[in-house]
Amino acid sequence: MRYKAIIAYDGTDFEGFQRQNEKRTIQGELEKTLTKLNSGQKVIVHGSGRTDSGVHAIGQVIHFDLDKKWENEKLRFALDTQAPYDISVKSIENVTSKFHSRYDKHHKYYKYTIDLNKAYNPMYYRYAYHYIYDLDLKAMKDAAEILEGTHDFTSFCAAGSSVLDKVRTIYKIDFKYNEDTKILEIMFFGDGFLYKMIRIIVGVLLAVGNKRLDVSKIEEIIAAKNRNLCPPTAPAKGLCLMEVIYDNA
Amino acid sequence: MRYKAIIAYDGTDFEGFQRQNEKRTIQGELEKTLTKLNSGQKVIVHGSGRTDSGVHAIGQVIHFDLDKKWENEKLRFALDTQAPYDISVKSIENVTSKFHSRYDKHHKYYKYTIDLNKAYNPMYYRYAYHYIYDLDLKAMKDAAEILEGTHDFTSFCAAGSSVLDKVRTIYKIDFKYNEDTKILEIMFFGDGFLYKMIRIIVGVLLAVGNKRLDVSKIEEIIAAKNRNLCPPTAPAKGLCLMEVIYDNA
Repeated sequence: MRYKAIIAYDGTDFEGFQRQNEKRTIQGELEKTLTKLNSGQKVIVHGSGRTDSGVHAIGQVIHFDLDKKWENEKLRFALDTQAPYDISVKSIENVTSKFHSRYDKHHKYYKYTIDLNKAYNPMYYRYAYHYIYDLDLKAMKDAAEILEGTHDFTSFCAAGSSVLDKVRTIYKIDFKYNEDTKILEIMFFGDGFLYKMIRIIVGVLLAVGNKRLDVSKIEEIIAAKNRNLCPPTAPAKGLCLMEVIYDNA
Repeated sequence: MRYKAIIAYDGTDFEGFQRQNEKRTIQGELEKTLTKLNSGQKVIVHGSGRTDSGVHAIGQVIHFDLDKKWENEKLRFALDTQAPYDISVKSIENVTSKFHSRYDKHHKYYKYTIDLNKAYNPMYYRYAYHYIYDLDLKAMKDAAEILEGTHDFTSFCAAGSSVLDKVRTIYKIDFKYNEDTKILEIMFFGDGFLYKMIRIIVGVLLAVGNKRLDVSKIEEIIAAKNRNLCPPTAPAKGLCLMEVIYDNA
């Protein structure tokens, strides 16, 4: 019996999603809890993709198989309450054995949060990048517009990726700035993102906003297919996987 | 030279605002840092009021005296960066020696946050009360309206308060519910609040919303001046002091 679950987590105290011996990871902790619920029989968890150490999720999707037929809400509650406090299990549903959280065609929505207060908001300490320099939001939006669409994003992919095809489509990059709280949110909608791609793009957008990089350079950077042209990668803690949307849901 | 500062803090890892020997408190940590900045000469910090263990602040106001005349932004930066990471110093200004953060007439704005998701949002784990039962928002608003205005709030004051006059005015109780995130915020504006008064009121509002208490009982509870008539106090972690507004600012 295959189960699909939507989970949320505070990534701060995890060494990323992917299982690693002895290390505290989201996949590792979920597998431990599910194996316990499965009377000690090993359960493997598959995610829609990995998230890095420190990256959060509001709507990560996983799937796993259990021999036993559980009532979904009972399983959700058991997994939610027995998994560590910084992982939540929002919903569980049955899917056919053909469903695969990673390989089934899907789209992703990420949010990157930036705290522009001179003194950071302590309640965003774990969830936002504190950036105290001036930002030209208009220039950032112009740069984002150039990045939207289908491109070879080789220049925006960190070393260590084994992916060969680096062509991806960004449907939309949206900005939301709250004047009162001075919190800037940048929303990314795409058909998939390369290793550290969003954090590298945020680094580029901040460089443009701070006048360290001219908007006119964006096309050159894309064309060069050279990671070294990008300014520093933005930190993990500002990033959150908001939603995974499957074509056949 | 008297300085007034606006500070923010994540109350999770503090045992409240007020200085207590050996315990990690906001006042205690700020006094330690200021005394260091003041070449070891003891500095006393006064707050607009105490906040309990676990209660947060976005806009707490403090004042303190230093012999030395600092440039305000330099002092703000020094205090902000040398104080613990979960305290932020948002602004510092000079005030006359007559200003007193606690005794000068002021009004306060608090926010109480409730996470209504079945599985809590891990990013609100420290900042919201997770409440999974049904709530009738309309009934809660009706109850809030009865509590607005000037009343003797003895029934809504926890034991341990030394305050004699328990008449307070609540100017407004506002509700904001986000359908997407399922986060409910209740905003309280008043001329001052008694010990645990907001958390006791939130407990009452939740009991009304959950049909464990009828709206018609609110007036009786106020009139009885008896703390024992109120349902359980809502937890500290949902509460945040948003702003302190002085009459002569």
